Amino acid sequence: MTDTSQTVAAGQLRAIIERIERLNEEAKAIGEDKKEIFAEARGNGFSVKAIKTIIQLRGKDHAERQEEESILDLYKAALGML
Amino acid sequence: MTDTSQTVAAGQLRAIIERIERLNEEAKAIGEDKKEIFAEARGNGFSVKAIKTIIQLRGKDHAERQEEESILDLYKAALGML
Amino acid sequence: MTDTSQTVAAGQLRAIIERIERLNEEAKAIGEDKKEIFAEARGNGFSVKAIKTIIQLRGKDHAERQEEESILDLYKAALGML
Amino acid sequence: MTDTSQTVAAGQLRAIIERIERLNEEAKAIGEDKKEIFAEARGNGFSVKAIKTIIQLRGKDHAERQEEESILDLYKAALGML
Repeated sequence: MTDTSQTVAAGQLRAIIERIERLNEEAKAIGEDKKEIFAEARGNGFSVKAIKTIIQLRGKDHAERQEEESILDLYKAALGML
Repeated sequence: MTDTSQTVAAGQLRAIIERIERLNEEAKAIGEDKKEIFAEARGNGFSVKAIKTIIQLRGKDHAERQEEESILDLYKAALGML
Repeated sequence: MTDTSQTVAAGQLRAIIERIERLNEEAKAIGEDKKEIFAEARGNGFSVKAIKTIIQLRGKDHAERQEEESILDLYKAALGML
Repeated sequence: MTDTSQTVAAGQLRAIIERIERLNEEAKAIGEDKKEIFAEARGNGFSVKAIKTIIQLRGKDHAERQEEESILDLYKAALGML
């Protein structure tokens, strides 16, 4: 490996690392925004746990949700949990 | 630090590491057992996702479960998800 | 709870959920960008594992890194791993 | 589905769940044992972070470790981190 190719590789490596670091910073900022919103919600008396469950459910289409809920009810009934 | 105390520390360090490694092995074996049980359940037509949810619910006391379910229903109603 | 306060709460709840969902979308896009950059790096012959380790190290200040590396070398020597 | 097959399925379901719950209990106990050992190690002046890194390294064969360390040193040199 010649000096120039080493320098090129070093430059490439640095560019890759700096792009990932910028994205990590953005992801960190998003994490902090979410924490603030959840703290605000908690302060207004909302249940963050329920909000997270609702967001999971909204991420599924209606049929998938219906099927999961009916299986769950079936198992709850079978185990006397209803 | 004298040679003897270094050897004692090295012995202590090795003992700590080996105890953790043994526990990691046990945890790994448990993980594999669980994988087998879930594969068996899947093979018998059970929904592993529903089984995991049921196990989570069984880990909570009845009052906690009732409260969580009623808040969730309240939010679902508020968002027109029922 | 009057109808109006229920509607206000529903509106608040919906706003909270939609803000979180937007942030989740942004976080997801960042995750995909990172995956692309790592795939590109891999394609150019770089070790993604080493890149991730380097990024972790760059996240620490020099003194912290030096201390961690010297403790690690001490333990490696004590366990005959050098 | 007849009553008997439903009862059989309920029995099967309960057995699966109880087996997983027992394994979860064992895994939890292992987690607590590890916590105690790390607390003891910390109390004796050892670095838990370094111990965890050593355990990771011991989980790799010598050649794999050597290769990872040499790539890391190459990248550190390229980025002026040595």
